[in-house]
Amino acid sequence: MADEVILLDFWPSMFGMRVRIALAEKGVKYEYKEEDLKNKSPLLLQMNPVHKKIPVLIHNGRPVCESSIIVQYIDEVWKDKAPLLPSDRYQRAQARFWVDFIDKKMYDASTKTWTTEGEEQEAAKKEFFEALKTLEGQLGDKPFFGGDNFGYLDLSLIPFYYTYETFGKSSIEAECPKFKAWVKRCLQRETIAKALPDEKKVLEHASGMRKNLVLE
Amino acid sequence: MADEVILLDFWPSMFGMRVRIALAEKGVKYEYKEEDLKNKSPLLLQMNPVHKKIPVLIHNGRPVCESSIIVQYIDEVWKDKAPLLPSDRYQRAQARFWVDFIDKKMYDASTKTWTTEGEEQEAAKKEFFEALKTLEGQLGDKPFFGGDNFGYLDLSLIPFYYTYETFGKSSIEAECPKFKAWVKRCLQRETIAKALPDEKKVLEHASGMRKNLVLE
Repeated sequence: MADEVILLDFWPSMFGMRVRIALAEKGVKYEYKEEDLKNKSPLLLQMNPVHKKIPVLIHNGRPVCESSIIVQYIDEVWKDKAPLLPSDRYQRAQARFWVDFIDKKMYDASTKTWTTEGEEQEAAKKEFFEALKTLEGQLGDKPFFGGDNFGYLDLSLIPFYYTYETFGKSSIEAECPKFKAWVKRCLQRETIAKALPDEKKVLEHASGMRKNLVLE
Repeated sequence: MADEVILLDFWPSMFGMRVRIALAEKGVKYEYKEEDLKNKSPLLLQMNPVHKKIPVLIHNGRPVCESSIIVQYIDEVWKDKAPLLPSDRYQRAQARFWVDFIDKKMYDASTKTWTTEGEEQEAAKKEFFEALKTLEGQLGDKPFFGGDNFGYLDLSLIPFYYTYETFGKSSIEAECPKFKAWVKRCLQRETIAKALPDEKKVLEHASGMRKNLVLE
């Protein structure tokens, strides 16, 4: 039986992007279903009744939720191509640690950089860039976080490049040259080019949300 | 070479308890080092410079941080005894989902039940018990969350029993009889009896913290 794979997603979602990249890396064909988050579909509410959030991967009728868990699931199911998590157990624990770090430290800060203003916005930018520097320290001189091959931590972090492009391009280029080179390396990959939406569209979307949240 | 295993921990920590149970289930011998969280040791700051939090497992000199990641690491390293995560990939993703749910929904609510008062405390209790009911639905009529065998989700949830003992014993017994029976089943296990501190001492500790936080 061929696998039936459906992705419930919302195009500018950083968490959705992770799943799209993972599926592209594995060469998995799937049906993409765009969700209207203001009017969630009965399918989304049925498949993720707990959080009612995208992304949800529906594999042969069964849902998997939460992007970091979905990506691990994808890696375990389609294990013969493009391994995403390191095969070494210690390195695997480290990759999980840093993805958890991104989720705990960078997501809120990233969101606040474009949904707040004044002091709160400045504090969020500072927090975002401090987390970025910590991560750059982990990258070191390697091409990707896991070494020579693109993997779990790379795909979990790259959707945040929109934030850096918007708010800190010049300072990042000066302060985090290795991170900047890593972004360029990632964006050259076909899987990422396909999975990530156009930068201009994402920034327009963020700008629209910012107007609604901050200025109204 | 024999494994050198050190656990940096703080005795009433729910996250520390998870790791202690996992090590007990696997029969791993380790050195327990109690941390004074008001005066953290140089070893803790060196081994977890990012979060500076316990628990930290130091395995042959290398640190692993964050309880859910530590438990997965323990399961992957000492894989021949007492498997903790389900072997089925879908069930494994589900177990990860529910542990993440506990961390996101129950921990804050649990802490607030004994660090706040009035309306905020009532709201926290409600949230805690709602999450508990959701989890009881997942347990169903099985002896443990994964089926017949005690595992990852069980050990991640059982440290929260202190909260339920303190604040909702009577209502839980009436409303969540299956959860109550599961707690009893868990507490009868030797590994848990050894890994969890005495209930009275934990409640005294919580009560002391409550006095400092709420009443001062």
